[in-house]
Amino acid sequence: MTENPFAAGCAWIEDEYVPISEARIPILDTGFIRSDVTYDVVGTWEGGFFRLDDHMDRFERSWQKLHMNPPVSKTEMVDILTECVRKSGIKNAYVEMIVTRGLAPKGSRDPRLFSNRFYAFAVPYMWICHPENHDEGLHMVIVEDTIRIPSNAVDPTVKNFHWGDLIRSLFEAYERGAQNAILLDAEGNVTEGPGFNIFALVEGELYTPQHGALEGITRRTALDLAEMAGIKTHITTFKTELLFKASELFLTTTAGGIIPITKLNDHVYGNGRMGPTTRQLYDHYWAEHKAGQWVTKIAY
Amino acid sequence: MTENPFAAGCAWIEDEYVPISEARIPILDTGFIRSDVTYDVVGTWEGGFFRLDDHMDRFERSWQKLHMNPPVSKTEMVDILTECVRKSGIKNAYVEMIVTRGLAPKGSRDPRLFSNRFYAFAVPYMWICHPENHDEGLHMVIVEDTIRIPSNAVDPTVKNFHWGDLIRSLFEAYERGAQNAILLDAEGNVTEGPGFNIFALVEGELYTPQHGALEGITRRTALDLAEMAGIKTHITTFKTELLFKASELFLTTTAGGIIPITKLNDHVYGNGRMGPTTRQLYDHYWAEHKAGQWVTKIAY
Repeated sequence: MTENPFAAGCAWIEDEYVPISEARIPILDTGFIRSDVTYDVVGTWEGGFFRLDDHMDRFERSWQKLHMNPPVSKTEMVDILTECVRKSGIKNAYVEMIVTRGLAPKGSRDPRLFSNRFYAFAVPYMWICHPENHDEGLHMVIVEDTIRIPSNAVDPTVKNFHWGDLIRSLFEAYERGAQNAILLDAEGNVTEGPGFNIFALVEGELYTPQHGALEGITRRTALDLAEMAGIKTHITTFKTELLFKASELFLTTTAGGIIPITKLNDHVYGNGRMGPTTRQLYDHYWAEHKAGQWVTKIAY
Repeated sequence: MTENPFAAGCAWIEDEYVPISEARIPILDTGFIRSDVTYDVVGTWEGGFFRLDDHMDRFERSWQKLHMNPPVSKTEMVDILTECVRKSGIKNAYVEMIVTRGLAPKGSRDPRLFSNRFYAFAVPYMWICHPENHDEGLHMVIVEDTIRIPSNAVDPTVKNFHWGDLIRSLFEAYERGAQNAILLDAEGNVTEGPGFNIFALVEGELYTPQHGALEGITRRTALDLAEMAGIKTHITTFKTELLFKASELFLTTTAGGIIPITKLNDHVYGNGRMGPTTRQLYDHYWAEHKAGQWVTKIAY
């Protein structure tokens, strides 16, 4: 039996499926040299996409807001994503789809004239925090030297690769002995962290920032699950005080789901372990991945 | 005689020189999927680099500020850039050097643990505005819907690919019938445009923004040439009023040098052609490219 060359991951690059280690894009693609690009990530769990339609719909809104016109339809994209997962054989996959502005036509710098490109890949599921560490959660700081890129510069609801502020925040977090970072906007409002949304449980009700953050699909799932559990939710603007008033904090991300934040600056939440409400949502979140309304099974 | 396969451009990708059309980078390089990257561009003119040392010094400051450690030394980079130009045979070249954070080591998202990468390429000189249109200059608008990414989010003195705000400003400019755009910061101060610095000549003295803009090498050249010509210069913070009070406006960029802005919103400068002071600096700028202190000749 020969080894599957796609076992480590499969990418789709310009009409061809290639092993992830060989997946390359032109250095002159303005998706790279101008970060003129949008992307989305959908997870598969035990061979099923989770909230595939929601990810595709958000992805479509993103490329439309950037005035892009991908070379394949949304239906074709789903076929390609499915085939990437299928070829790799990976059951728990991190599946990324990308539309770039593409290469400049000869002699032009006018982004309206570019042929946009679509790339995709499936690799093993990525964890922002490994499952064995989910109970102890993450230690974070509110960064002081960096603010989140404001919405009137780069629209955070268009999922993008502008991570300069987020990477900078990580370096500050590491220097301060933390594992990850929460960023504020110029007015001191809580926004998000590198690749995740933030939730605070205050007097039994859940709060998540309204502005300056990605409209995360996992964030939406956490809101949906909270409502199912009869927990009141608030999408609103708030300052750091609310985070310190909270009994539990957690983050949401496709790269790991719902993960507790057990320490923020010097403040420890509860007994420094996943709190009971976070646990309830966490368990429900993973139960929903087995089957149900949000799962699209893949035929391997 | 066989055609030179590098005639359209030559890139250096992981220890190999390749024709520009074949130059590709891994899709998983975080220089792409996180825009965790810095770059610089130096021009060659009639076979000589212009201000090579200044570009290399700025590039070094950029990667250091990002806590990156390129796999080749600055001296080796110069050799690679020279070889890219030499192989291509291009006399007037646009030579780009890039350091990316690189690929994530297995199971990690900690940017401190990545092996950084160096890429480079030389292609024919790019013009933000074609030379035959230099006299009539560019028509621009001050964009209203987008602000420049602030310095405390992403440091603009580290030359970067975070062009989301700049691309957005171009779409607004096109919609308003202009060719290019000038961006303000959140306080309404003038910053820069997509890939260029801005200068205003007011009562015979030159003004350019102090904050929120790249410390352009061509900007520095314009300041140097102005001083040689006995023109007083100011690196300072100012609002749009100064632009409208100016008798001449121009931009500076490696991708074209000194180019007049002859119309801003509805305001036309002079007779809508390159003004006399801009012309003086323009002529001197290109004269300095033939030979002199700033030129490093390449042996083809």
